Amino acid sequence: MRLIRPFLASLILSLLLGLPIGAVLKAEEAPGGQEQLKELYDNETLKTWYEEYVGLEKGSGPWMDLYKPPAMHMYWMPTRHYVRPDGTYYDQLLDKYKADECVKCHEEVTPGLVRDWRSSTHAHPKKNDYFTAKTKDIEKHLDQELEEVDCSWCHGKDHKELYMPSSKHCGQCHVQQVNEWLSEKDYGRPNHPQTTEANVIVPWYPELYRMGIGSLQFGCDYCHAASEKCDICHTRHKFSAAEGRRPEACMSCHMGYDHPDAESYGESKMGYIYHMEGHDWNFDKPLADVIPGEDYRTPTCQFCHMYSVDGKYSHNTVSKGIWRMGTVPPKGMEFKSSLKDYPYGVKLPPLDHKLDIYSPESKKKRERWIEVCSNCHSPRWGRLYLENLDDVMFQVWGLQDRAQKVIEDVIAAGALDPGLDERDPYPLGDVIADALGPGLLGEPIYNAFKQTQGRLPVLGPILGVYGVFYPGKYNPSKIERWYADMWFGDKAHLYKGTAHVQQDISWWYGASKVFEKIAYIESEARMLMRAKDTDKLLKEKGRFKSMPSLGLILAGLVGIVFGAAVVMKKRS
Amino acid sequence: MRLIRPFLASLILSLLLGLPIGAVLKAEEAPGGQEQLKELYDNETLKTWYEEYVGLEKGSGPWMDLYKPPAMHMYWMPTRHYVRPDGTYYDQLLDKYKADECVKCHEEVTPGLVRDWRSSTHAHPKKNDYFTAKTKDIEKHLDQELEEVDCSWCHGKDHKELYMPSSKHCGQCHVQQVNEWLSEKDYGRPNHPQTTEANVIVPWYPELYRMGIGSLQFGCDYCHAASEKCDICHTRHKFSAAEGRRPEACMSCHMGYDHPDAESYGESKMGYIYHMEGHDWNFDKPLADVIPGEDYRTPTCQFCHMYSVDGKYSHNTVSKGIWRMGTVPPKGMEFKSSLKDYPYGVKLPPLDHKLDIYSPESKKKRERWIEVCSNCHSPRWGRLYLENLDDVMFQVWGLQDRAQKVIEDVIAAGALDPGLDERDPYPLGDVIADALGPGLLGEPIYNAFKQTQGRLPVLGPILGVYGVFYPGKYNPSKIERWYADMWFGDKAHLYKGTAHVQQDISWWYGASKVFEKIAYIESEARMLMRAKDTDKLLKEKGRFKSMPSLGLILAGLVGIVFGAAVVMKKRS
Amino acid sequence: MRLIRPFLASLILSLLLGLPIGAVLKAEEAPGGQEQLKELYDNETLKTWYEEYVGLEKGSGPWMDLYKPPAMHMYWMPTRHYVRPDGTYYDQLLDKYKADECVKCHEEVTPGLVRDWRSSTHAHPKKNDYFTAKTKDIEKHLDQELEEVDCSWCHGKDHKELYMPSSKHCGQCHVQQVNEWLSEKDYGRPNHPQTTEANVIVPWYPELYRMGIGSLQFGCDYCHAASEKCDICHTRHKFSAAEGRRPEACMSCHMGYDHPDAESYGESKMGYIYHMEGHDWNFDKPLADVIPGEDYRTPTCQFCHMYSVDGKYSHNTVSKGIWRMGTVPPKGMEFKSSLKDYPYGVKLPPLDHKLDIYSPESKKKRERWIEVCSNCHSPRWGRLYLENLDDVMFQVWGLQDRAQKVIEDVIAAGALDPGLDERDPYPLGDVIADALGPGLLGEPIYNAFKQTQGRLPVLGPILGVYGVFYPGKYNPSKIERWYADMWFGDKAHLYKGTAHVQQDISWWYGASKVFEKIAYIESEARMLMRAKDTDKLLKEKGRFKSMPSLGLILAGLVGIVFGAAVVMKKRS
Repeated sequence: MRLIRPFLASLILSLLLGLPIGAVLKAEEAPGGQEQLKELYDNETLKTWYEEYVGLEKGSGPWMDLYKPPAMHMYWMPTRHYVRPDGTYYDQLLDKYKADECVKCHEEVTPGLVRDWRSSTHAHPKKNDYFTAKTKDIEKHLDQELEEVDCSWCHGKDHKELYMPSSKHCGQCHVQQVNEWLSEKDYGRPNHPQTTEANVIVPWYPELYRMGIGSLQFGCDYCHAASEKCDICHTRHKFSAAEGRRPEACMSCHMGYDHPDAESYGESKMGYIYHMEGHDWNFDKPLADVIPGEDYRTPTCQFCHMYSVDGKYSHNTVSKGIWRMGTVPPKGMEFKSSLKDYPYGVKLPPLDHKLDIYSPESKKKRERWIEVCSNCHSPRWGRLYLENLDDVMFQVWGLQDRAQKVIEDVIAAGALDPGLDERDPYPLGDVIADALGPGLLGEPIYNAFKQTQGRLPVLGPILGVYGVFYPGKYNPSKIERWYADMWFGDKAHLYKGTAHVQQDISWWYGASKVFEKIAYIESEARMLMRAKDTDKLLKEKGRFKSMPSLGLILAGLVGIVFGAAVVMKKRS
Repeated sequence: MRLIRPFLASLILSLLLGLPIGAVLKAEEAPGGQEQLKELYDNETLKTWYEEYVGLEKGSGPWMDLYKPPAMHMYWMPTRHYVRPDGTYYDQLLDKYKADECVKCHEEVTPGLVRDWRSSTHAHPKKNDYFTAKTKDIEKHLDQELEEVDCSWCHGKDHKELYMPSSKHCGQCHVQQVNEWLSEKDYGRPNHPQTTEANVIVPWYPELYRMGIGSLQFGCDYCHAASEKCDICHTRHKFSAAEGRRPEACMSCHMGYDHPDAESYGESKMGYIYHMEGHDWNFDKPLADVIPGEDYRTPTCQFCHMYSVDGKYSHNTVSKGIWRMGTVPPKGMEFKSSLKDYPYGVKLPPLDHKLDIYSPESKKKRERWIEVCSNCHSPRWGRLYLENLDDVMFQVWGLQDRAQKVIEDVIAAGALDPGLDERDPYPLGDVIADALGPGLLGEPIYNAFKQTQGRLPVLGPILGVYGVFYPGKYNPSKIERWYADMWFGDKAHLYKGTAHVQQDISWWYGASKVFEKIAYIESEARMLMRAKDTDKLLKEKGRFKSMPSLGLILAGLVGIVFGAAVVMKKRS
Repeated sequence: MRLIRPFLASLILSLLLGLPIGAVLKAEEAPGGQEQLKELYDNETLKTWYEEYVGLEKGSGPWMDLYKPPAMHMYWMPTRHYVRPDGTYYDQLLDKYKADECVKCHEEVTPGLVRDWRSSTHAHPKKNDYFTAKTKDIEKHLDQELEEVDCSWCHGKDHKELYMPSSKHCGQCHVQQVNEWLSEKDYGRPNHPQTTEANVIVPWYPELYRMGIGSLQFGCDYCHAASEKCDICHTRHKFSAAEGRRPEACMSCHMGYDHPDAESYGESKMGYIYHMEGHDWNFDKPLADVIPGEDYRTPTCQFCHMYSVDGKYSHNTVSKGIWRMGTVPPKGMEFKSSLKDYPYGVKLPPLDHKLDIYSPESKKKRERWIEVCSNCHSPRWGRLYLENLDDVMFQVWGLQDRAQKVIEDVIAAGALDPGLDERDPYPLGDVIADALGPGLLGEPIYNAFKQTQGRLPVLGPILGVYGVFYPGKYNPSKIERWYADMWFGDKAHLYKGTAHVQQDISWWYGASKVFEKIAYIESEARMLMRAKDTDKLLKEKGRFKSMPSLGLILAGLVGIVFGAAVVMKKRS
């Protein structure tokens, strides 16, 4: 693990800097076409992790030495992993086509994508007045005329030096859009430009590779490729702005378990009106020019989430985010479980703070939301609706706290079964402490990992989510999985269902599922406690190997281990 | 609880009267435009509960003193809860706009809704011959000319006396439609006009407020607002009849867990044909004029469910309902569990009877269904299909009975864990008996609640559904939650999947899920019984505090407690 | 059971013959219009099982004597079960209409279907040049002119001899299409022409009838009727080829639990582009003429799955199937559970072999897939993507093996609870051995069934799937149900989500759900083992009746019982 340590030294610098809000507005004010393109990875550590090495021998991110990426990563993360084809096939075709006859040749090899490009604005950058004006701005910026944006702009001029484009290539011409998009980083995670980091930085990601099942994470990789692939929203090779304005552009990623946005918007009144009428709406108009009730009868994802302030729009979808994904506990609640001590000294963003719903920044964001809602609802309606959403969130965090307390009591009683000694450790539990160090983990958690080699219970905000990502032996057990599902999945349905006004998702697949998990967890906790009692009565205390070790851990630790161990410490 | 008692005295009068069938046909026969608008709440008790008090200090329904509604209730139930804005913002705008310049001002404040109205028939009530004729009827009824139905018709003429409209306001002009819609009450629950009652009358509704998590019921409130909000189906401010004829008008409420109508219709052959072709169908035509196979190639929700008889349509969606939501046990089955004694003496509709699938009324309804199906299928096909649906329902009720018996045996053996004494009581268990009295609850259930202060097991038709609505401490336990899911959710998928001819919902998310719950319940029952045996063998009978209390209850009760306790009594 | 035995004698002949690949290409090469229509059931046993008996007194398939089909089977399987209407209603109408006035009369009785037919090519077989040419081919084949294909072509000329059509009737004119469709049988199961066999041949199908809950299988029957009903894809009475080319034609069957094709395609980028733009695509073009990127911007189900080779298309959707439904274990893996011994000597296809992903046939199919992908992606992209899918599948089979081993260890320890003696036997467990004999079942499994009367644990590929189809008493138990869900449902989501590039289904409803089941199964296994230990310590070994019997079984059996018992045998 020595290789990892030096990288981590600069993790603090790389991840903790640059988070103050404000850059978006600056980006908006910059004159189009004259702006400098910003960097995706703006320090050397991140560049090393995500850009410098090219190939398929090692992965991305801080754990890059621990795994080899599957070959498809060359398309998901081309900057780092793309490997040029060996050229044999290309050489054969050179008999038939010249080296600069990309289109002619590809009309034979991959006809669909060529025709897609033919119908694009890239093929006809001056097809109408609107695009002619846009193109002239770009020409000015490039100091070059553009009659056609052909293959070479994105893939290079030499097939033997072929590359796959990233946002950096798009940004050659579309500076403002890419810079606005990069400005999402100023608002903290989650955001699009850092989504690949979010994917590969978590310890269970390389752990699954160590277990030999890393390819099962294909579903993760495909969305989290958005860090450098603009064509996730503007599908290649048409790259249509109009397509990017339609809700469907977001939906194949923003759906399901942890962010049921597609479902909750799509099945709301707004979504159904879009479904009925949207075919005839005008998506060629830039968002800032859209007349609500005329161009669109209901909002789209983009209409609300890309709204900035004072009627302006920006290619930034997170500038108004308050509850973010709803997974970080809020300030101002009296938690009874160890949630009250969150973040337990951890310094790793976004694990390093509670959410402050009522901070000045949050309040400013709230006002911008109300501006959006007021396109169609009275400002008072908007305000009350959003306050209602806050109520819902605070109340469900109360239930989360209750569930966490139940499990912490089970752990403190030594009743968790299978016990810790029999389990696979926490993902990368054997190397985490050394790799991250006490500076990032905080002393108590560092010590806990160090002394137990990662054999410790972890539940709750953010690290506890491993429970839905990791099939360790006996880890998580049923009760911990239910907790993780409640917190990461069911709560998300309640949140997004309420936020997007989809009542059945809010209730049946949100609140009622949270209640279900409470019932499961409390019943299971009872059963575990009862089994423990039975064992004691049978005078067979030594039967389960893990119990003494757990005692040892509890006795020996200074340690606070995320959720559960806080309680233990106080009792021991 | 003294306040509640007097209301309850008249509950019998208010809820049990007026259920005979027939009013719909009368409403149909009444000459359009000359009819008297009927009342939504047609007796004083209900008026008091749902109309008279205005504000946010207390809730709606019989438990109104037990909770304060969240602010959004002013929009969901405006008749009762709307609170006028304080006027400051309005006063400021008076410098710029005159008091009667609603539209001008709102074009600035809420532009989307103004444009929505501009595209409505309200803004152009004589836009074509069809609507001119309709409008003339209304003019005759009102004795007034209508060139424009402006804001004041629904919100009043004085911004300082602003109100939000309910069906009563719509009924000023649309008498026949609102009366037909009100006629749904004549067919018993569920129906639209009483859906708010259904939402707030159940004891878990106020209980969640007492627990401090009432806002989690947002999802419930938003659909159940349909009692007075016509704009749930005809979205404001367009209020389009054509929109109301499209399946999407129903879908954001009629989806999910307990009534997967959107899914089962939408993913059936009928739904997919609508999906492919519906964009080009003629929804401007009134339902009675629709030519099947020409105007529509497949039916819509409205085409089947609003069909009345002899080719006529009515704004009543429940007149042909036989199995209703499928949650009430049918007559004519030999149940082995306490289902045989349902409704256990309860007098509260719809808890006061088994369904009679073969009553003369049901048979008449069946014939009307066959009339609908025969638009496209042979009458024989329709008849056999509906008989097949009956078979499916009877068979699944048999499985429900089996599951109920398993749990009743667990309860009778005192093996339910956690025991009753350790649990939170039944929702409002501490006040239910006093509030409702033996007259409504029946002596046995009244006594059971009274003597146990609500600490008693309840499962099965309708009161057992609390299991999916209530996160009481240790209540429900896992096994009871599974039972409730089987009965309220899985059975609903089997039912609606079969009824709407969506095979995967019928099987995979219906029948197979019912089988899953049987497996879970029987395995869990075995584990509970085995744990009980273990305890006995350990001579530690006193270990779980609840057991003696349960013995006490069983011994002392005259009581029959909905499902389970019926069995116990017979054994004790 | 004597009746069944003779049929089974020829089962080997009927089911095991005729599986070599190749017929499809022949069918393609045959000159249209001159070809001979092939048989759906091409031997006498199958004819007897599926065609000869007509009525509702006994069912279909090898277990036909064990159940009576519900009346709706007359429409799902008309060849076998259709019963003509008694004629009274028809006779009454003869006063009004002549016997040959089908259309006139049905315009009154079932107007929708008549108008559907009126808009069909059947009503106007020469409506344009394209169809005129097609129709002339058919005229040549029939040696008859066709100005209108009226009711009699499919339902006969005499209402008193009315019949419902099957693929045989469609094949009178559409020989090539039906023959190509029949050629699916050459590629093994699953396929469309044998889907009814697949439905009724499994032992749980008649078992549910014996239990009195056969109608719950409506959802199964409705899809599996596809063996003889072309109108499942080309809805009656329009029978449009263009409709059959749209993804929705597949979706009401190909969705859900075990084959989430509709969801995974529909919510992929490809699906969403179809959703946004498909309304305007040209579905009148035959697939072979479709220009990708011009006629369609993304592929449809048909565009990929009906592709044959060298740019040709065939009415065969399975010719490129490699992993099929993903439910059969692949060769080349080192399984630790009894999966290594699969298929345990069973001779019943598709239970008689492991999948060979790298066989010459599979490799050839793979190349054809890459041809399809290369319409829009580079061939290298397609190849790597498909290899990635293979990786995913092999890795998840590893987890399946792990779960199976856990349960086998529970069984071997005698810790499964409830025990085998207390359970309902395996579906048809009492008659299976006699009915199928050692030739088909293999000696070990034959003996196991014979000696235990079907009271034996079965899990894993294919027979273990009963767990999601059968609510036997205590059979399956929770842990077995979870196993079956993991294998048949969750794995299917991972597979189809990955194959159709829908990331959330691949991950959240696939991989993460597989992990969930691992957690459930390992926790439950621990609890069962612990309860067993407790019993032993209590010196109450005899408490659960099943344990000695299980010992007996294990001692006495030569037998290998699918999954679990393999392990037992080795240990005993």
